[in-house]
Amino acid sequence: GRLDLAVLFSRAPAAAAGVFTRNRVQAAPILVSRRHLAGGRARAVVVNAGCANACTGEEGVRDAEEMAALTASHLGLRAEEVLVASTGVIGVRLPMEKIRVGIAQVSRRLSPEGGQEAALAIMTTDTRPKACAVRVELGGVPVTIGGMAKGSGMIHPQMATMLAFLTTDAAVTQPALDRALRRAVNRTFNRLTVDGDTSTNDAVFLLANGLAGNRPLAEEEPELDRFTAALEAVAGFLARAIARDGEGATCLIEVRVEGAPDEEAAEAVARAVANSNLVKTAVFGRDPNWGRILCAVGYAPAEVDPGRADIYLGPVLVARAGSAHPFNEEEARAALSQEEVLIRIALHQGEASASVWTCDLSYDYVRINASYRS
Amino acid sequence: GRLDLAVLFSRAPAAAAGVFTRNRVQAAPILVSRRHLAGGRARAVVVNAGCANACTGEEGVRDAEEMAALTASHLGLRAEEVLVASTGVIGVRLPMEKIRVGIAQVSRRLSPEGGQEAALAIMTTDTRPKACAVRVELGGVPVTIGGMAKGSGMIHPQMATMLAFLTTDAAVTQPALDRALRRAVNRTFNRLTVDGDTSTNDAVFLLANGLAGNRPLAEEEPELDRFTAALEAVAGFLARAIARDGEGATCLIEVRVEGAPDEEAAEAVARAVANSNLVKTAVFGRDPNWGRILCAVGYAPAEVDPGRADIYLGPVLVARAGSAHPFNEEEARAALSQEEVLIRIALHQGEASASVWTCDLSYDYVRINASYRS
Repeated sequence: GRLDLAVLFSRAPAAAAGVFTRNRVQAAPILVSRRHLAGGRARAVVVNAGCANACTGEEGVRDAEEMAALTASHLGLRAEEVLVASTGVIGVRLPMEKIRVGIAQVSRRLSPEGGQEAALAIMTTDTRPKACAVRVELGGVPVTIGGMAKGSGMIHPQMATMLAFLTTDAAVTQPALDRALRRAVNRTFNRLTVDGDTSTNDAVFLLANGLAGNRPLAEEEPELDRFTAALEAVAGFLARAIARDGEGATCLIEVRVEGAPDEEAAEAVARAVANSNLVKTAVFGRDPNWGRILCAVGYAPAEVDPGRADIYLGPVLVARAGSAHPFNEEEARAALSQEEVLIRIALHQGEASASVWTCDLSYDYVRINASYRS
Repeated sequence: GRLDLAVLFSRAPAAAAGVFTRNRVQAAPILVSRRHLAGGRARAVVVNAGCANACTGEEGVRDAEEMAALTASHLGLRAEEVLVASTGVIGVRLPMEKIRVGIAQVSRRLSPEGGQEAALAIMTTDTRPKACAVRVELGGVPVTIGGMAKGSGMIHPQMATMLAFLTTDAAVTQPALDRALRRAVNRTFNRLTVDGDTSTNDAVFLLANGLAGNRPLAEEEPELDRFTAALEAVAGFLARAIARDGEGATCLIEVRVEGAPDEEAAEAVARAVANSNLVKTAVFGRDPNWGRILCAVGYAPAEVDPGRADIYLGPVLVARAGSAHPFNEEEARAALSQEEVLIRIALHQGEASASVWTCDLSYDYVRINASYRS
């Protein structure tokens, strides 16, 4: 009796933008949504959980198209106004009989209060729903930005996918919306790693229907930065919620790199550390094993000198200028025993900084990903 | 009472070549050995296990230099004729008192039969010694190539390192030796991944003393290919032995990519699959989860089309042209239950092929890397 299908509906036509997986294996719903987004507008999104509709060939594309068309017919829209997303098992056709029934049922139940149910319906191995909203003033007019997401690893036996759906009543031109979304995603969802795998179905959608009544934001307006910052807050909250809910995770890890020559280098270093199985198992073991962190700094694809790096676990300095620094073992272990663990790397080679979020690597990650469909 | 120091000694001056970690954090013995190798000749190697002498600053470099100088004085050599390698905990100074005693003791016990003891002495988390030798004829003269290695992950609590020591009585000019080593390493040790981490201490040395009496091999000679092939056989055996002994491994995995546009693309695809935690946990769970394999093909940094790829687990075809292919579940599970699991990906996009070796990802990997120094 678990929910596994959701429909998002905008009461007014909306500008829309999307960001998709860079995997060359692109699931059918990705192909269809890309096409429907070409005009930069959308009014609804239909999402199912349990089957990814990936590696399903031409039939899979027809199934995804039918999902959009069916949803459109129930809501009085054109098929091109509906975006499609799927998450679940790879290589299996959608159970279209169930999907048709589900779309009909859900379309009759649409409600402004349905957000929580929708956040539950898009879950796969997630242990909790992930949603949030912020309010911000644009030109004196209050607007709301809300979002929900799912994903906790590239995931469960053949489960794929990080999905996020962001909506706002702000009026934003499509080019400005696209730019805001890309910028927010680059600093949030794209800085998230659970196991380094990029799925076939990853997608983030943003719909802006303008019902708040603010003057529409165009690309070069200063107010757009304000909107982008608010969007980044929502996306960042959801990205951290995904890392915290990573498969088998016992804690959220933020790898923060400071003093880098540029943001790209900061991100590359943070990503190498966040992707290291050895760092992630050490955190699971509450082991202040700074040698593994420095080692990952050393192989990150960035022109930085690890010999000048200081490393902090929470507030505790554990390595200085690339070498051992005496520290209190108990304090370091305590820093690794928080629900949110901060690994901070001060490079002293510039002014740029970046964070990447991940989780620890536990026995349960192996259990979840090794124990199979049976 | 476990052995933890080894000395290799050549009865005659030898041409020497080395390949070192690409990590920007380079341990002191790497810095010293690079310098000693500049002349292209060496007569001995001294190795200790337990302390990596990495991230130890100027003092660490002096310690590594002392190791070379001491070994040289015991053997009647110049310090520059001695190469140094270390493996073990990062960020801790060498226990030089013990090292001095060890070098003195070992130098008195050198023996042509000492190979097995040496292979034991260089182990850290390895569960078995790794050594082998081959014989090949060069211009009608039989020559021997032998080798030993250690390494089973970037490894144990702060343990680093893949080390390999190759020796031959063949006569080879230094430029030819260097070229043969680089080529053999690129197709063997460089195609090995346990957890994707590149340590601060990785090194492969090759010494050739010419005592076999063959006519010295120069760079452009056809016989050099024969020598290189034999060297690759030794290095390949050792590389597979390291993967098989990977931390927590229950099996060796060979990821073989065929039909790639070029060898670089084949290797990139094989490496992406071999590095995927999701693929590695699926093999641990004996789960014929081809969607994860295809997904990794999709994000590999190579211009290949996953939509044309066939995937085999051992002899069992599980995906065809990037989509599901009906297969017998029991047969597929049986293919994943071998001591050596073959994942074969046929791209149908060219003639090139490459293999990368790894192991599965088990509970024990997490246990070994999370449970700490205590």
